[in-house]
Amino acid sequence: MKQLTILAFLLLSVFTSAIAQTGEPKHKLVMQLNTSDTLIWKGLMNNLKNLKAGWGDSVKVEVVVHGPGVQFMMKDKTTQADKIAQFKKMGIDFVVCENTLRERKVSKDQLLPEAGFVKMGVGEIILKQEAGWSYIKL
Amino acid sequence: MKQLTILAFLLLSVFTSAIAQTGEPKHKLVMQLNTSDTLIWKGLMNNLKNLKAGWGDSVKVEVVVHGPGVQFMMKDKTTQADKIAQFKKMGIDFVVCENTLRERKVSKDQLLPEAGFVKMGVGEIILKQEAGWSYIKL
Amino acid sequence: MKQLTILAFLLLSVFTSAIAQTGEPKHKLVMQLNTSDTLIWKGLMNNLKNLKAGWGDSVKVEVVVHGPGVQFMMKDKTTQADKIAQFKKMGIDFVVCENTLRERKVSKDQLLPEAGFVKMGVGEIILKQEAGWSYIKL
Repeated sequence: MKQLTILAFLLLSVFTSAIAQTGEPKHKLVMQLNTSDTLIWKGLMNNLKNLKAGWGDSVKVEVVVHGPGVQFMMKDKTTQADKIAQFKKMGIDFVVCENTLRERKVSKDQLLPEAGFVKMGVGEIILKQEAGWSYIKL
Repeated sequence: MKQLTILAFLLLSVFTSAIAQTGEPKHKLVMQLNTSDTLIWKGLMNNLKNLKAGWGDSVKVEVVVHGPGVQFMMKDKTTQADKIAQFKKMGIDFVVCENTLRERKVSKDQLLPEAGFVKMGVGEIILKQEAGWSYIKL
Repeated sequence: MKQLTILAFLLLSVFTSAIAQTGEPKHKLVMQLNTSDTLIWKGLMNNLKNLKAGWGDSVKVEVVVHGPGVQFMMKDKTTQADKIAQFKKMGIDFVVCENTLRERKVSKDQLLPEAGFVKMGVGEIILKQEAGWSYIKL
């Protein structure tokens, strides 16, 4: 009987763990932006608009910005400041790679106030995938 | 004994679910095409040819077309109509994002007859990854 | 009792399999390089440098080179020969798609000595994802 209880407990752990992984929100997406191509930036804005229109709060999105993509978050370079502010209010996170800032001599002052930060953009994308998030490259 | 039966049933569910996910076909791939670059389209044709040559029916492929990539499926824009028809006969699916059609004022009449449809291209790619499909960005 | 033993064995298999998948090294990443754009190559070198600086031997990386990306590994085309040699010594693998070599009439002699080989680049990326590796497209 005791063994049965242990087995039941183990099974419960497996199921609980599975539930925790799907969790709330239902869908989790990490997007990678590493280009200064403003048409790609515009495409990203469309993707975010459609995702929120279609799935609302059931989708969590984090945009990881690194390499030449850093210009997307720079006050005097971006073409999407207003939309970034709107999407941030809707719960979408924009995180910038600190390695990129150092390599390109960009200070945090030069970035939009919506910017969050991660030590390493590529590492962040890996960690999110390991945590079960879907991945889309722009 | 009853508890044992319940446990056995639960275990069976876990295994059945695992088998269903790996299932048949053995490999499942969602590819993302969001560019009007005809060299990338040509590369995709090569990838599909090699995948079918190497893995035959053990691989299931769905190509999700959105954004500027929609031209790949437009009768008067595509450079790959014949090959798309061939690959469709071999079981490869080409699905177009309906948000893209609306935003770009493209009607379904303008698309190749092989086109399938999804409400949201990015959402489809997420759903496939959640279902255990591999993902490749072109 | 026999049934209990069988159940315990099955459970153990599930857990062992889960542990084997996370295994050592902690992080596993397959990167896809299919472009002849030398700025993207330079970005890859930065990514690899930062990954090894940040995570050391806890990250395993394989770069899959196919399509126009093959030039990255060609002695008389690459701009990154020295760094490729360095990263190879640090345990990063660079594998070239043999389908690409055949299609582009490139012989293995023309490649850097650090090149490894896979039958099909796209297939390799699928297999790695199926084995639980994270994926990043350059």
